[in-house]
Amino acid sequence: MIGVAVVGLGYWGPNLVRNVLGNSRMQLVAICDYSSENLQRMAAKVPGIMATTNFEDLLSNPQIDALIIATSVMTHYELAIRALKTGKHVLVEKPMAHSAECAARLIEEADKKNLIIMVDHTFVYTSAVRKIKELVDSDDIGQIHYYDSVRINLGIFQSDVNVIWDLAVHDFSIMDYIFGRAPVQISAIARSHVPGQPDNMAYVTALYSDGLVAHCHVNWMAPMKVRTTLIGGARKMIVYNDIQSDEKIKIYNKGVSVDSERTDLRINYRSGDMHAPMLDNVEALSRVIEAFADAIERKAVSPTAGQCGLRVVKMLEAASISAKRLGEPVTPQA
Amino acid sequence: MIGVAVVGLGYWGPNLVRNVLGNSRMQLVAICDYSSENLQRMAAKVPGIMATTNFEDLLSNPQIDALIIATSVMTHYELAIRALKTGKHVLVEKPMAHSAECAARLIEEADKKNLIIMVDHTFVYTSAVRKIKELVDSDDIGQIHYYDSVRINLGIFQSDVNVIWDLAVHDFSIMDYIFGRAPVQISAIARSHVPGQPDNMAYVTALYSDGLVAHCHVNWMAPMKVRTTLIGGARKMIVYNDIQSDEKIKIYNKGVSVDSERTDLRINYRSGDMHAPMLDNVEALSRVIEAFADAIERKAVSPTAGQCGLRVVKMLEAASISAKRLGEPVTPQA
Amino acid sequence: MIGVAVVGLGYWGPNLVRNVLGNSRMQLVAICDYSSENLQRMAAKVPGIMATTNFEDLLSNPQIDALIIATSVMTHYELAIRALKTGKHVLVEKPMAHSAECAARLIEEADKKNLIIMVDHTFVYTSAVRKIKELVDSDDIGQIHYYDSVRINLGIFQSDVNVIWDLAVHDFSIMDYIFGRAPVQISAIARSHVPGQPDNMAYVTALYSDGLVAHCHVNWMAPMKVRTTLIGGARKMIVYNDIQSDEKIKIYNKGVSVDSERTDLRINYRSGDMHAPMLDNVEALSRVIEAFADAIERKAVSPTAGQCGLRVVKMLEAASISAKRLGEPVTPQA
Amino acid sequence: MIGVAVVGLGYWGPNLVRNVLGNSRMQLVAICDYSSENLQRMAAKVPGIMATTNFEDLLSNPQIDALIIATSVMTHYELAIRALKTGKHVLVEKPMAHSAECAARLIEEADKKNLIIMVDHTFVYTSAVRKIKELVDSDDIGQIHYYDSVRINLGIFQSDVNVIWDLAVHDFSIMDYIFGRAPVQISAIARSHVPGQPDNMAYVTALYSDGLVAHCHVNWMAPMKVRTTLIGGARKMIVYNDIQSDEKIKIYNKGVSVDSERTDLRINYRSGDMHAPMLDNVEALSRVIEAFADAIERKAVSPTAGQCGLRVVKMLEAASISAKRLGEPVTPQA
Repeated sequence: MIGVAVVGLGYWGPNLVRNVLGNSRMQLVAICDYSSENLQRMAAKVPGIMATTNFEDLLSNPQIDALIIATSVMTHYELAIRALKTGKHVLVEKPMAHSAECAARLIEEADKKNLIIMVDHTFVYTSAVRKIKELVDSDDIGQIHYYDSVRINLGIFQSDVNVIWDLAVHDFSIMDYIFGRAPVQISAIARSHVPGQPDNMAYVTALYSDGLVAHCHVNWMAPMKVRTTLIGGARKMIVYNDIQSDEKIKIYNKGVSVDSERTDLRINYRSGDMHAPMLDNVEALSRVIEAFADAIERKAVSPTAGQCGLRVVKMLEAASISAKRLGEPVTPQA
Repeated sequence: MIGVAVVGLGYWGPNLVRNVLGNSRMQLVAICDYSSENLQRMAAKVPGIMATTNFEDLLSNPQIDALIIATSVMTHYELAIRALKTGKHVLVEKPMAHSAECAARLIEEADKKNLIIMVDHTFVYTSAVRKIKELVDSDDIGQIHYYDSVRINLGIFQSDVNVIWDLAVHDFSIMDYIFGRAPVQISAIARSHVPGQPDNMAYVTALYSDGLVAHCHVNWMAPMKVRTTLIGGARKMIVYNDIQSDEKIKIYNKGVSVDSERTDLRINYRSGDMHAPMLDNVEALSRVIEAFADAIERKAVSPTAGQCGLRVVKMLEAASISAKRLGEPVTPQA
Repeated sequence: MIGVAVVGLGYWGPNLVRNVLGNSRMQLVAICDYSSENLQRMAAKVPGIMATTNFEDLLSNPQIDALIIATSVMTHYELAIRALKTGKHVLVEKPMAHSAECAARLIEEADKKNLIIMVDHTFVYTSAVRKIKELVDSDDIGQIHYYDSVRINLGIFQSDVNVIWDLAVHDFSIMDYIFGRAPVQISAIARSHVPGQPDNMAYVTALYSDGLVAHCHVNWMAPMKVRTTLIGGARKMIVYNDIQSDEKIKIYNKGVSVDSERTDLRINYRSGDMHAPMLDNVEALSRVIEAFADAIERKAVSPTAGQCGLRVVKMLEAASISAKRLGEPVTPQA
Repeated sequence: MIGVAVVGLGYWGPNLVRNVLGNSRMQLVAICDYSSENLQRMAAKVPGIMATTNFEDLLSNPQIDALIIATSVMTHYELAIRALKTGKHVLVEKPMAHSAECAARLIEEADKKNLIIMVDHTFVYTSAVRKIKELVDSDDIGQIHYYDSVRINLGIFQSDVNVIWDLAVHDFSIMDYIFGRAPVQISAIARSHVPGQPDNMAYVTALYSDGLVAHCHVNWMAPMKVRTTLIGGARKMIVYNDIQSDEKIKIYNKGVSVDSERTDLRINYRSGDMHAPMLDNVEALSRVIEAFADAIERKAVSPTAGQCGLRVVKMLEAASISAKRLGEPVTPQA
C-alpha cells in the first residue's frame, strides 16, 4: 500500500481524500491544512486519520510515501519541492506551479531522486476528453483545423490567480493531451472589470506549426454557464458540451470538399449523420489517483506527468506576457 | 416618388427589389445585373420594369434618382462613385467599399454634390439590435464591459472576400451603432483551411478607450449555426440569440457587487430575474429602405450613413492588417 | 401530361399550385376559388392559366384529368364526389371528408369509375416520417410500445374544425402509415376555452390490439410551439422533433432488459449511443404530387390512398364521440 | 425540542435525517430500518443516535414525540396508525397510504388524539411551485384553463407501486395545492411493457367543475428525462421546467382575445414579454420539516396536512380504477 497524505482541504481537497480512500492501492495516512477549521471539518469525516496543520509532520512521517497537494497555486512549488527533497512522490493540483522555472525545478528534483511528479489535470481523465483523444488519434476526424472553447459563467473570483490561470489552464491541459505538442505562438487579451481584482475575462489564441489554431474564451462574468468546445477536422467535427449530462460529445460527419475539376465553384458542402457515443460514468478523479498509483508502483508514464504540467505552465506564462502587452503575440518558452 | 434602380441581383438584390416595391415613397425604375441569367429571373417577377445589363443605362436615365448597389464588394466603389458623379443618391451593400480610402472618397463626392451615400448595415435595423441600443443608451445595463459574438456555421465560401469581410462586418456595424465610437486597437487571427481559398475562420478582438473589449468568432466551417452575442454590463447582461424565433433577447439582472467593507472576500454575486422583451416582426430591410427615403427627402441622418460605413471599413482594414501579422495589435486609422 | 386543376387557394392551395408546376408529368390547367380575391392573387402569379370562381367550369373541361381539392373540410366530400362522377381523379386535403360515411362513398365511386382518390397526408411523405417507417419496419427498434406526440402552439383557431380534426389528424395519418393497422379503442378529452369556439385543446389516446398505446396532445393555446414525438420500442427509442432543422430524428440505443435469473431486482437499464441520421431536404409535397401522378399513370397504390384517408377519418370520428362523452372509450368503426 | 425518529433509510430517508439534524426545533432521537445494512450505513454517519431494526423500540421511547416514516408505500398505514395510537405525531412519505380508507383512518386517529398527521408532498414546498401558487392566487394569470405535465425518464422500476403511484402522485399533490379543490372526473390509461411488472407508463386526465383540465404523462421508459409543466391561463401562461437549474419558471404574456364586434374572425392573438422570476435555493425538504415543527408546536395547518394526503390518495385510487377499465372515466370518491 502507498501511504498518502492530502495537503489542502478547501474546495478540491475533500474530493481527493474521498478518491484516495476509494483506491485499493493507497492508504490515507494523514490530512493537512493550515486552516484548523478546514482540517476539523475533514477530520470529522475520516476519524482515526492523522490530522495536522503542520506540513513538517508529513515530511518526517516514514509511513507517507506520497503527497497530494491541493493548496493555493502560489504555494505549489514550495510544498512540492520540499516533499520531493524528503523523498516523497508528489501529485499536485493544476497548474503545476506559478512559473515555468519552478515547474522545471520540480521535474529536475523528481528525476534526481527517481520520484514521481504528476499534475492533476482532471479533464484529461474524463470519459469525454479520452474519447476525443481516441477519435483524433484514429484519424477518423482528419487533420485538426481548430479547437475552440467557451468556458464562461458567473463565477467565483479567485483571489490568487486570474481567469487564465483558473480556467484556460483546463483547455491548455486538454490541448496538450489531445495534440501532444506545444503551440508556436500565443496571444491573449484579458480584462479586469472590478478595480483591484485579477483579470476576470480573457481571449487566448494559440497557433501551432501546422496551421491548427486553438482559442479559448474564459470569463467569470457571463450571464450563463457555457462549457462548449468545437473541434473542427478535415473530415468530421466534434462538439463537446460538458454541461449536458447526456450526449456530451456529438460527432458531425460534415465538412467541405474541394472539387479540383472545376475552377469557379470549387467548394462543396458535405452533411451527413451525427453520432453521440455513449460515455461511461467513471469519476475522472478516480482515474487520476489510479494513474498516480501506477506511476509510483510501475513507473508508468501518466498522461499528465511533470513534463505536461511544465508545458501547460509555459503556455500560461506566454498568455500572461501577451495579455500584459495587450495581445501582442508571444512565442512560448521552448 | 423617388426613382430607384437596383444593381446586382444575386443573393441579396431580390430582397432589395421586393422592399423597394413595398415602399410608398419609392418607385422601381430599373434593375441591372451583368449576368443576363440573374436579370431575366428577376425581370420575370417585375414585368414592365426596365431591365439592363448595361450600368450606363442607369446613369443616363433621368427618372432614376437613386441607385441601390448589391454587387460584389470589389465593385462597390467603382459603381458608387460613378453614380454619385452623375448625381444619383447611393445605398450600397455592406461593406461600403473594399478600402477605407475609397469609402472616404465616396463620402467626399456625396458631400460635394449634396447627395446621400448610405450603407445597408441591415442588422442595425433589426428589432433586436434596436432594442439593445435602447437598453444600452438608457443606462439600465450599466457601463458595458464586453461585447462577445459567435457567428459561425457551415457556410458558403465567398469567392471575393474572406470571412472577416463577410461576417465580422455585421458585428462591426452593430458595435459602431451601439457604442457610437471607434476602437483604439484591433487584433485578428485568421486561417484558411482550404488551400487557395480566402480565410474561413477568424477571431477578432477590438479594445476601446474605456476598457470595453469586443470579440467576434466568425467561421464558415463550424458544425452548427450559432448567432449568439453576449453584452456584459456592470448592472445587467444581455444574451442576443438571433437564431431563436422567440426570446431573441434575454436580459439578465445578474452581476457582481463589490463589498468595500470587507478586505478578504470582496466580490458578491447578484442573481435576479430574467426578462425577454417582446420584439416586433418588422422586416429590417424595409426600415433600411425607409431610412434611405428619409435621407433623400428630408436629409435625415440615417444610423448607417456614409461615415458609419467608413468607420466599419477602417475596422475591417485594421483586422486584415493584424491577421496578416498573425495577430499583432493594430491601431485603426483615425 | 396529366391536366390538373387546383381548387381552394387559401393557406395550402398555393403550395399545391407550385408543386404541380414543378412536376414534369403534370400540367396546371386551371385554378379555382370561390373568393375572387384569393383567385386574383394566385392568378397574377400564374399568368395564362384559366382562373375561375365557378367549380362547374372545371368539371366540364376535358383538358382536366385530375382535381386537387384544398378547400375547407366541410366541402371536401361535395366537391370530390362531383369530380369523381364526372370522371376526374381526385387528390383531397386532409382530412379526406367530414365523415367516414362520406369518405367511404368517395372510395366506392372512385372504384366504380376506376379513378384515383388519394389524400394529402403530407407528413407521411416527409423524410423524417419515412425514415421512422423504415426503422420500425426493419425491426431495429423492436416491438413498438408507445407513440407519444405533443403538437401544440399558440395557433390559428380554425372556424370549421376543432383541434382534433386540425392537428390530431396529422398524428393519425402518421400512425396509420407507420403501424399499418387500426386501433381497437380511442378515447379523447377535449376542451374549448373560448365560448362559442371549437375545442382548442385535446388529449387523444388510441389502444392497439398488441398493447401499443398512442397518445397525442394537441393544443392551439400553448405558450410555445412543440412538435415532438417519442416512439418507444423494445430495443431502441426514437425522438422526432419536427421543429429542429437539423437532427430531426434521434435514435437512442436505450431500454430495459429483464434479468430472468434474479427474482428481486429484475430490471436492468441499457444506455448506449445516440444516432441522428442525415435526412434529405426534398419537399414532402413534391412527393405527394409525384405519388398522385404515379397512381394515375401506373395505378400505383400510394401510401395515402383512399383507404388510408378513410381509416384516419374513422379515428377522428371515434375521438369526437369519445370527447362528447367526456373521455369514454370508443371502439372505432371497423 | 421535538424528539424525532426517522423510519426507513432507503433512498429518501437519509435526506430526512439530514434535514431533521439541520432543524433547530427538532432533535434526532432514533433511526430505524428493517434492513440492518441500511441501518448501519446511516448509523455510521450519526454516531450516538439510537439505531434499531425494531419499530417497537420507537413506540415505547418517551423521548420520541414524532415519527417520520419513509418506508415502502404498503407499510405506511400500518406504521403510522401504530405511531398515532401510541401518541406520536406522524410525517409520512407520499403517497399517504395505499388506500383512501386507510388515509381517512389516519386522520381520524390523529384528530381523536389531537396529534398531527402530515404528508411529505415535497414538491409543494419547492420555490418553483410556491411561486406558481402565488401567481395563480394573484389572478395575474387569469382563470386557469389547463395543467399539463410531462414527467418521464428512463427510470427505476418500483417494485411496490406502479408509475401512477410513483410519479403522478407528484402532479396530484401540486394540483391539490395550486387549485385547492378536487377534480370531478379522472380517467387513466396505463401500460406495462415488461411482463409481470407494474405499469410503467400512464396518461392521466382530471376534469374540474369549472372546465379546468389537468393531464399528466408519466413514464419510466422514455429515452430522455423531461419534467415540464404548462399552466395555461386566460391572461398568461406558465412553463415550469424543473430540470433547468436557471429559469425554471417562465411566464408568457400570451393568449387570445375575443373581438366581440366582429362575427367572422373573432380570435386575436396576444404575444408579449416573457419573464423568468428569480427563485431562491432553499431546499424544499427543509421547509417540509419546518412545517412539521410548526404543526406540532403551534397547531399550524400545513399545506400538506392529512386532508391533502387523503385527497391525493383518492385521485390515485380513481386513476387506478379507470386504468383497470382501460380509461373509462371515474368520479373520485367525495
